[in-house]
Amino acid sequence: MKNVGILGFGVVGSGVAEVIAMNHDKIASHVGEVIQVKRVLDLREFPDSPFASLITHDADEFFGDSDISIVVETIGGARIAYEFTKRALSLGKSVVTSNKELVSTHGVELMQLAEDNGCCYLFEAAVGGGIPIIRPLHRCLAANEIIRIQGIVNGTTNYILSSMRNVGLSYEDALKQAQQKGYAEQNPTADVDGIDAQRKLSILSSIALNGLYVSPDAIHAEGISSISLDDIEFADKIGCSVKLLASFFNRDGGKPSAFVAPFFVSKNELIASVEDAFNMIIVEGNALGEAMFYGQGAGKLPTASAVVGDVLDAALHSGRNPHITKWYVNADEESVIMPYSDVITNVVVKSCASNADSLMQTFSSFDCKVVCDDSSCSAVVVKGISHKEIEEIIASVIDGSWMHYMD
Amino acid sequence: MKNVGILGFGVVGSGVAEVIAMNHDKIASHVGEVIQVKRVLDLREFPDSPFASLITHDADEFFGDSDISIVVETIGGARIAYEFTKRALSLGKSVVTSNKELVSTHGVELMQLAEDNGCCYLFEAAVGGGIPIIRPLHRCLAANEIIRIQGIVNGTTNYILSSMRNVGLSYEDALKQAQQKGYAEQNPTADVDGIDAQRKLSILSSIALNGLYVSPDAIHAEGISSISLDDIEFADKIGCSVKLLASFFNRDGGKPSAFVAPFFVSKNELIASVEDAFNMIIVEGNALGEAMFYGQGAGKLPTASAVVGDVLDAALHSGRNPHITKWYVNADEESVIMPYSDVITNVVVKSCASNADSLMQTFSSFDCKVVCDDSSCSAVVVKGISHKEIEEIIASVIDGSWMHYMD
Repeated sequence: MKNVGILGFGVVGSGVAEVIAMNHDKIASHVGEVIQVKRVLDLREFPDSPFASLITHDADEFFGDSDISIVVETIGGARIAYEFTKRALSLGKSVVTSNKELVSTHGVELMQLAEDNGCCYLFEAAVGGGIPIIRPLHRCLAANEIIRIQGIVNGTTNYILSSMRNVGLSYEDALKQAQQKGYAEQNPTADVDGIDAQRKLSILSSIALNGLYVSPDAIHAEGISSISLDDIEFADKIGCSVKLLASFFNRDGGKPSAFVAPFFVSKNELIASVEDAFNMIIVEGNALGEAMFYGQGAGKLPTASAVVGDVLDAALHSGRNPHITKWYVNADEESVIMPYSDVITNVVVKSCASNADSLMQTFSSFDCKVVCDDSSCSAVVVKGISHKEIEEIIASVIDGSWMHYMD
Repeated sequence: MKNVGILGFGVVGSGVAEVIAMNHDKIASHVGEVIQVKRVLDLREFPDSPFASLITHDADEFFGDSDISIVVETIGGARIAYEFTKRALSLGKSVVTSNKELVSTHGVELMQLAEDNGCCYLFEAAVGGGIPIIRPLHRCLAANEIIRIQGIVNGTTNYILSSMRNVGLSYEDALKQAQQKGYAEQNPTADVDGIDAQRKLSILSSIALNGLYVSPDAIHAEGISSISLDDIEFADKIGCSVKLLASFFNRDGGKPSAFVAPFFVSKNELIASVEDAFNMIIVEGNALGEAMFYGQGAGKLPTASAVVGDVLDAALHSGRNPHITKWYVNADEESVIMPYSDVITNVVVKSCASNADSLMQTFSSFDCKVVCDDSSCSAVVVKGISHKEIEEIIASVIDGSWMHYMD
C-alpha cells in the first residue's frame, strides 16, 4: 500500500481524491498495490466531503506522517506551495503537482532537490490539464531536436474567443459569461493577459531545450483583452480564426524564440477548429515531423487524471526519479530566448486608409500577398518580417494594425 | 556509452541509424552518455549506406557482442523477428521494436521474457508511427478506466480514401497511386483488408484493459476494398467522410468490443478532417474525458523517432523495465471481446428502393433520423442497433446497404 497526502483541497485536490477512490481497483492492479489518500492538509473544513475525516489543519502532523510517501500539491501559487514542496522533497517524499506557476518559477531548484533526496517532482498536469504532453515531449520525443511547439494552452481565453465568434458577444460580455460558467476566475488577469500561457510555455520550452531553463520573465506575453468583435469578424472574412497561441521556435541554429500572442489562424489548420475550453498543442521534431495533442486543458477530473497518473508513476518508481528530469540555468546568464523585437514572424497587416496596392508596395521586399481588398479596408499577409520591423512600419508608414498569422 | 544493435536494415532500421547519428548531441545530453549503433544484422549488403561498415550477416557475431545492450528489431513479421527477439531478451538485452505483428501475436510471452531477464521490451513505434500513443495510454492515463479508443491507425488506407474523395479516383486507381508513391506495398492486403489496423488495435486494447491480452484473432476486421466512389460521394452528401476506424469500447460494465471497419464520420468531428497518410487516435478515459493524438503514422524518420525514443528509455533504465508493462492471458480462456454480432453501434442505412418514411418505419423501435431523402435514394441514421440486427434487416427487410456511423 502507498499512502498519498494532498496539500490543498480545492477543485483539483478534491478531484484527485475522487479519481483515486473511483478507479481504486484499476489503479491497484496497475501499480500492484493499493493507493489511498491518507491525509489532506487545508485550512478550511469540508464537512460535506466524503473525505472530511482526512482533513487536517496541522502541517507538522501532515509532514510528520512517515506513511505518506507521495504528496500531491494542489495549492497553487508560488508561496506556501513552494515552502511545502521543499519540505516534502527534503523528507524524500515525491511531489506531484498541477501548479504551473511554481514549476515555471522554481522548477530548477525543486527538480534538483528531488534528485538530491531520491524522489520525484512530477508535473504532467501543469500543462494541458488532462492531455498527456509533458511525458510525450520529454520521453517519447527525446530522440528529436524540438524545432517548434505551438498551441492553445489556455482554455479560458479560447472559450472567450469562441463565444465572441460563435455567439457574437463582445469581449466584456464573453468574459462575464465565462466567469458565470466557471471557466474564468473573478480576477481573470492571469488568463486573459496571457500569464497562464506564459508559465506553461516556460515549462514546455525548458523541456524542448533539454532542460535549459526558460524563465517566464523571458517570454513576451500578450493576452486577448484588446481583441474586438471587429477582429473576430475580420478573421472570418479572410478565412481565419483568432486564437491565443503559445509559440516556441528553435530552427536554423539561432537563438530560440518563445512568445504568447493572438494569431489569425487559417481555417486550413486543425488548430483553428479548436472550440470552447479545449486545448491543442502542436509539437514539431526534426525526425518526427508534426504531432498534435488535443483535449480538455482544465477541469476537475481531467486535471486530476493527469495528477494521479503521475502519482502512479511515483509509486511504481519509488526511491528514484522515473523521468530523470532536471533543468539547469544558462551558465553565462545571457537570456536563452531571443528578444521579442528580433523574432521573425508572419503577420496580417490591415488598413482602412491604404489600398491593397499601396500595402503591397510598402512590403515589396517581403514575401506578401493580398488577403482582403474591398471598400471598407485592405489587408495583406507578410511573411518573414521581424516584430521590430512591423512595429516600425505600423508606427510611421501605415495607418493600420497587425496580428501574427499562421497557415 | 551504450551500444545499439539493429536487426533488419530496411526503411525503419536505417532510419533508426540515421536519427541516432543526426541527433547525436541531443541524445547524449539527454541520456548522460553517448548512444551509438555498433552493429547491423541483415542478409543484404548496403555498400552506399554511411553505415555499410556496421553490417554483419552473422547472427552469432551480432548476439555474441556483449557490448550491445539494446537491440532494435525492425525486421517485421513474426518468424525470424520472433526468434531473434527471444534470443536478445534471453541474453538480458532490451529490445525495442516497431513490429506490430510480433507484439500483437507474441507480446504476452515476450514481455514476460523481458521481465524474467531484467530488461525491457518496448514498442512505442508499433502504433501510430511517430505519434506518442503507447506511453501516454499506458502511463499518463493509467489512473483512468479507458472506455473508448477510436482512430485512424493505418495511413495507407486513409491515403487511398483521401485520394478517392479529393481527386475522384476509383479505389483501384487510388491504390495504384498509393503504391507508386510508396504509401502502399506491392501486396497491399495487410493494409487494405484492415489486418494492420487489427494488429494495432490488439495492442491498444490490451493496454486499455490494463494488460489483459486481446488477440488480433478476436478482433473483427474489414478493410476498404469494397468502398466505391459512390460511397465517398454519398458520404459527402450527408455531411460525412468515409474513414477506416479501429474501435475499442468498454462502457457499462459489459464485455468490451473491438473491431476495424469503415465508418461514415460526421464532418463535425475533427477526425473527419484527417487527410492523406496521417493518423489520429481518440482516447476516452472515465476521468480524463476525450484526448486526441495526431501525426504521421508511418514513414522512415517519424517511425524511427519513436523507436529511438524507446532506445533512450531503455538506456536510462538499464537493468529494469521502465514501463512495467506486462500482458496476461484470460484464465478461463473465454474470449475477452464480445462477438462482433452482439456489438451495439450506430449506422447509416441507405436504400434506393425504399423511401425515407418506410425506412423510418422499419427502424421505428430505434433512435433514428432521416439524413437523405431525394429522388435517387434515401438514408437514415439508426442509433443503438446491434450488428446482428442490422444484418438481419438488410438481408430480409430492406433492399439497401449500411455502414457504421460516428458523430
